[in-house]
Amino acid sequence: MSRMRIEPRSGVAFTLNQGDCLEVVDPDGGQVSDLLAFNSDDVRESLSNGRTFDYEETIRLSEGNRLWSNRSNPMLTIVHDSVGSHDFLLTPCSEDTFRHFYPDKPVHRGCFGNLAEALSPYGVEQDAIPCAFNIFMNVPVDQVTGKIAVLPPASKAGDVLQLRAEMDLVIGLTACSAYASNGGTFKPIDYQILPKGRDE
Amino acid sequence: MSRMRIEPRSGVAFTLNQGDCLEVVDPDGGQVSDLLAFNSDDVRESLSNGRTFDYEETIRLSEGNRLWSNRSNPMLTIVHDSVGSHDFLLTPCSEDTFRHFYPDKPVHRGCFGNLAEALSPYGVEQDAIPCAFNIFMNVPVDQVTGKIAVLPPASKAGDVLQLRAEMDLVIGLTACSAYASNGGTFKPIDYQILPKGRDE
Repeated sequence: MSRMRIEPRSGVAFTLNQGDCLEVVDPDGGQVSDLLAFNSDDVRESLSNGRTFDYEETIRLSEGNRLWSNRSNPMLTIVHDSVGSHDFLLTPCSEDTFRHFYPDKPVHRGCFGNLAEALSPYGVEQDAIPCAFNIFMNVPVDQVTGKIAVLPPASKAGDVLQLRAEMDLVIGLTACSAYASNGGTFKPIDYQILPKGRDE
Repeated sequence: MSRMRIEPRSGVAFTLNQGDCLEVVDPDGGQVSDLLAFNSDDVRESLSNGRTFDYEETIRLSEGNRLWSNRSNPMLTIVHDSVGSHDFLLTPCSEDTFRHFYPDKPVHRGCFGNLAEALSPYGVEQDAIPCAFNIFMNVPVDQVTGKIAVLPPASKAGDVLQLRAEMDLVIGLTACSAYASNGGTFKPIDYQILPKGRDE
């Protein structure tokens, strides 16, 4: 499979077989990609930020960390990370978050709307969309007050995150639509599936 | 309604009307109570840690903060907090977390199992149980590494958290079953519903 492009402010869904790797690339730098994962045999099993924080004992996930499901199974392992800052605290941007954070700007359905549409053919209901793993999203947390900030991503053009599927998955993936998460620029995201056993 | 007791390592579910307050009391000190909330008209709308972190712009929630749903509606407002440290990062303890964190100790179904049983009559499926708001749970986060720790709660005997319902809710509530979250002691949790307009 060749490299695919997710156009600015849009999203896709596809299957990823156990053992295959998903490579997510920031082609221009400074862009965020929201990732969701569901067990393709039963989409009620889905990515869980809370289970992941529990088992990995950190909120900062990078090379070697695994992303866990609500049923306490590993779904994805981060096998390569050229950036090292991603977010798993925040939910995908949506019509409601646009109204809340950008009252003077046009409302957009956001990553949430893009993911809901792309995942609908796989039987994923809108209310079952969990917190996404927000690749390249830069969300520092103040240790004392707990306050969070959303800063422009640290990713440069060509930066990469590779994740290995630990079960057969349905993946949702976006090029983020919000102003704050990508520093006010809307850029594409590229991705590629690297089949098991293939050297890239 | 008089004060009710949740026995050690157990859980309950009940309805809470819009405007009423739920008072959660740590009668002996040093105990954690996992709280879940669902829209009683449609339990697919449920508490969301990610939406809450988004809108409240902090991971440390106390007096004045609201707890939000996956549909971007406020579910509960914290109106009184005598402790000031609670957790919304971690999922309820379960058989799987017991096997993972306490391999030498007997497996317990944990808050997850207790909540699943208590909420089942309200139509809440096990896979739809989100991250709980873990009242009195003490989970510091290292600002640089992101590492989390689970320390004994700061709550003393008689400490209280009061939350006002912003919609008609089904509530799940436990006295926590895990070793780490309550410093190895299993204690009860007390609660009381304070109806709207009643001075306590």
